[in-house]
Amino acid sequence: MEVTNKYIVIKHHIENAPKESHFELKTGTFALSVTPGSDDIIVKNLCISIDPYQINRMKSYSSSQNATNFTVPITPGEAVDALAIGKVVASGNAMFEKDDLVMGVFTWAEYSLVKEGSIIKKLESSEFPPLIISEFWNAYHFGPFFIAGFGGLTAYAGFFEVCKPQKGEKVFVSAASGSVGSLVGQYAKLMGCYVVGCAGNQKKVELVKEKLGFDDAFDYKEETDLNSTLKRYFPGGIDIYFDNVGGEMLEAAVANMKAFGRVAICGVISEYTDSGKRASPNMLDVVFKRITIRGFLAVDFMNVFEDFLAKTSDYLRTGKLKVIEDVSSGVDNIPSAFVGLFNGDNIGKKIINLAED
Amino acid sequence: MEVTNKYIVIKHHIENAPKESHFELKTGTFALSVTPGSDDIIVKNLCISIDPYQINRMKSYSSSQNATNFTVPITPGEAVDALAIGKVVASGNAMFEKDDLVMGVFTWAEYSLVKEGSIIKKLESSEFPPLIISEFWNAYHFGPFFIAGFGGLTAYAGFFEVCKPQKGEKVFVSAASGSVGSLVGQYAKLMGCYVVGCAGNQKKVELVKEKLGFDDAFDYKEETDLNSTLKRYFPGGIDIYFDNVGGEMLEAAVANMKAFGRVAICGVISEYTDSGKRASPNMLDVVFKRITIRGFLAVDFMNVFEDFLAKTSDYLRTGKLKVIEDVSSGVDNIPSAFVGLFNGDNIGKKIINLAED
Repeated sequence: MEVTNKYIVIKHHIENAPKESHFELKTGTFALSVTPGSDDIIVKNLCISIDPYQINRMKSYSSSQNATNFTVPITPGEAVDALAIGKVVASGNAMFEKDDLVMGVFTWAEYSLVKEGSIIKKLESSEFPPLIISEFWNAYHFGPFFIAGFGGLTAYAGFFEVCKPQKGEKVFVSAASGSVGSLVGQYAKLMGCYVVGCAGNQKKVELVKEKLGFDDAFDYKEETDLNSTLKRYFPGGIDIYFDNVGGEMLEAAVANMKAFGRVAICGVISEYTDSGKRASPNMLDVVFKRITIRGFLAVDFMNVFEDFLAKTSDYLRTGKLKVIEDVSSGVDNIPSAFVGLFNGDNIGKKIINLAED
Repeated sequence: MEVTNKYIVIKHHIENAPKESHFELKTGTFALSVTPGSDDIIVKNLCISIDPYQINRMKSYSSSQNATNFTVPITPGEAVDALAIGKVVASGNAMFEKDDLVMGVFTWAEYSLVKEGSIIKKLESSEFPPLIISEFWNAYHFGPFFIAGFGGLTAYAGFFEVCKPQKGEKVFVSAASGSVGSLVGQYAKLMGCYVVGCAGNQKKVELVKEKLGFDDAFDYKEETDLNSTLKRYFPGGIDIYFDNVGGEMLEAAVANMKAFGRVAICGVISEYTDSGKRASPNMLDVVFKRITIRGFLAVDFMNVFEDFLAKTSDYLRTGKLKVIEDVSSGVDNIPSAFVGLFNGDNIGKKIINLAED
């Protein structure tokens, strides 16, 4: 049986800020059956995670040691792949069968063909707390599932393993209402740190303070001198800066770090699309204050994945940890949702729902 | 008894590159006896260490978290203090007596008054290998003494404790003929790393390769694109960058680091005198290649001081480690020697001899 399948491609490599015109909605025919003898799996996508780091995969390749070579590139004209949740329609793989709920790297599409060697795992109710499973079935709250993926591990490993926090330390989190920042701030509060976040509008600031329980938060767009702003919120200095944005905020944070301060960098969204915004932290501060700036990727911390999952599930079940989701629907809306990430349009984890079952 | 004492002061705070006109040679009368009842020590300075980090102590103070507040400021009009070796002329302190050879924080002067609580220690022949003592007495080679101070500990702790090298790793050292860089490169060779250094002229490059045994070296002033230069010397990438200079070299090194690369920063001489030269390392590289950039000061590694001294003394005695000294004479020549550090005039550890005994 064949269906029509809507999917999104990039028209060409994207070097600067993404625009909707960089993307194209395509429609193709799609076989819902598996080629006999193959290990292919056909998945109907239910929900897709929209993540800013994808922009780096859309850039053109360059020479040997560059960051782009540490990512799997996205090819113009081919469906963009992304973390997603779906339902198995047909399977040539003995590990999966029709109607299995699966999570993996699928595509910005209604249907995906999952080849052998791709990332795919079954979502079993035993792996998740009943509350979340029931939320999922009742209300399509996919957020916690994605949190249980790399986004959550980024926050958990980045905070606990990279920043090595002590109770009572002063923690600053940028993009505080975002999928990673919102978790970092909550983990920091749970271990007894003082936490201030920044976000890009007043609504996000309120959410961070009131729903997520940060000690304080501010709208960085309302500030004219970030250096003074951070001095106001951290008169005694910052111990830990969890950086999601890079650029001027990183410079201001380094200027306000205490001795032996730690900066964990998991993303630099302000620099993804404009290399003119690169941070120039004062290295004299870095030397004299003995600051460590460390870039990291969640994938290097699989050794703490089980800890992360156990603790995070427990926190979610008992309501100590909250997940903020920002949900849109339909393949057609993927490009605008993705572009919106770079304008700060989303509040929390950006998700696109594609089907109900 | 009173003598005349020549000493050097800064006329005012120095914010950019130092010039000889920023300094003034003064002459005062100086008592060679100690105030009765005081713990003062009168020292005749034999030799003074000239170090670039001093420029940071000459800047004016600024607000709370800034790097300048992590240094002891130098006050305009007062004799500049610095690491030095001298001989005790008179002592009110029972721990020291006339003719003791001492090392400590004295002044850019012929004579220094060392107050209670100052840094001063006796140099005993038992602490140093006989070869060095004999070199010292015969030929005034003070270099190894200073190496046995913070300069050497900076190289040792920075390389072994901050960079955590593995045998066979690729190491890049800037300011490779300088007091710290020359040691780092030699320590790296001794543990089986591949080492490339850079320096500011061909004479230094030859010295680094031929006398110090680096695998390779280049004159950065002859290069038009440091990024390509490093790609040429490290086609497979850099594991460790020991940074003494900051600025463009730091950017180029980060661009050429391998995954899990480590950058240790003990100084950023190119940025001390021109904040417009601040490095803007690509943070996207820092994230995707999981690079750690860490500033450090030797003073935090006193726990390895004994190890450092034992190993380094042994290496010096057996000729495995060489110390490059650049010696001038006389208080009058201190300002030009200091200014020269920022022009790359010195080759190796810059020392001013002030008296023979």
